[in-house]
Amino acid sequence: MPTVKRDTYTPDSLLSVAVRVFNERGYDGTSMEHLSQAAGISKSSIYHHVRGKEELLRRGISRALGGLFGILEEPRAVEGRAVEQLEHVTRRTVEVLMTELPYVTLLLRVRGNTDTEVWAMDRRREFDQRVAELVKRAAAEGDLRSDVDARLATRLLFGMINSIAEWYRPDRAGSNGAPNDTSAEVAEAVVRTAFSGLRTH
Amino acid sequence: MPTVKRDTYTPDSLLSVAVRVFNERGYDGTSMEHLSQAAGISKSSIYHHVRGKEELLRRGISRALGGLFGILEEPRAVEGRAVEQLEHVTRRTVEVLMTELPYVTLLLRVRGNTDTEVWAMDRRREFDQRVAELVKRAAAEGDLRSDVDARLATRLLFGMINSIAEWYRPDRAGSNGAPNDTSAEVAEAVVRTAFSGLRTH
Repeated sequence: MPTVKRDTYTPDSLLSVAVRVFNERGYDGTSMEHLSQAAGISKSSIYHHVRGKEELLRRGISRALGGLFGILEEPRAVEGRAVEQLEHVTRRTVEVLMTELPYVTLLLRVRGNTDTEVWAMDRRREFDQRVAELVKRAAAEGDLRSDVDARLATRLLFGMINSIAEWYRPDRAGSNGAPNDTSAEVAEAVVRTAFSGLRTH
Repeated sequence: MPTVKRDTYTPDSLLSVAVRVFNERGYDGTSMEHLSQAAGISKSSIYHHVRGKEELLRRGISRALGGLFGILEEPRAVEGRAVEQLEHVTRRTVEVLMTELPYVTLLLRVRGNTDTEVWAMDRRREFDQRVAELVKRAAAEGDLRSDVDARLATRLLFGMINSIAEWYRPDRAGSNGAPNDTSAEVAEAVVRTAFSGLRTH
């Protein structure tokens, strides 16, 4: 049993520990006991900060959603041609995923039946839907190829973006010993690949 | 408790049931009891076909790997320019993923410590590595853009392809009531998106 340390947690630092444990064990597989052990403070100390693990899930998911929906309010996401807005949203979604990796990972993995999980899945679907509308508008403006269905294009775009959460580890150098790519570099590579394609023209 | 039915399974039909249960419950979370219930035959009947659940895992994974590595032997995967080979392998990987969905899903989800799981992850890495070499050759031949790193390009390509397993359900019509896209249509959309990009030129 780990030594119980004095509770010096802030709401944010406790959240960070909880989200790491949720991602490692799965939300369903995480008990207050697991959180207490990971944080090194008693369960009653955790209850001093939050009502329970579902509140920690809600806060973690909220942080991811705040980052993602915030993108849609940025000037470059609402001005100009739809295809430019779409490229901006793609680039920024990659950046938010990489800088807020544990929180977005939590959002991407949520499957479940609690109110918070249902709400998280609804909000995630809403974000996807907003991007899907941008894809449709860009297609209607003649800026996207017409031989790839808009719904499928949206899915492939999110497939590429979300898969980054499977391999990107901010604390780990690349396998060649070089530092990890920065989020801006990966974001640019995603935009180039998805919109202009890997082939030289 | 379900009625125990007469064992009319063939090795293939028993495998199909087992792979479905592995994908639903996770391999670790599946016991011989679960398999017995899902198949509706006794555990001893299952042991008549296989030595245990790890043999079923190995057979399921082998079927996925057979499909995937088979692609690399096809004439269009070994002849002509590397970029053409790469496009062929991309197209066919999507098709194999969609037609052998449960088996490839099993392969994609494997994480674990049994010999079979370690072997599966090694073989999957080997397939990814073979595709990564094609990407590098196509870049060296000047057919891929030089401003997206070959390793990252490979990851984004597999991100797009593998994400199809998250949403494609062969038995379900599209949400608009239309039939699902065929594997050839989705494969073509992936090749167009990844190699030529979504934007009109």
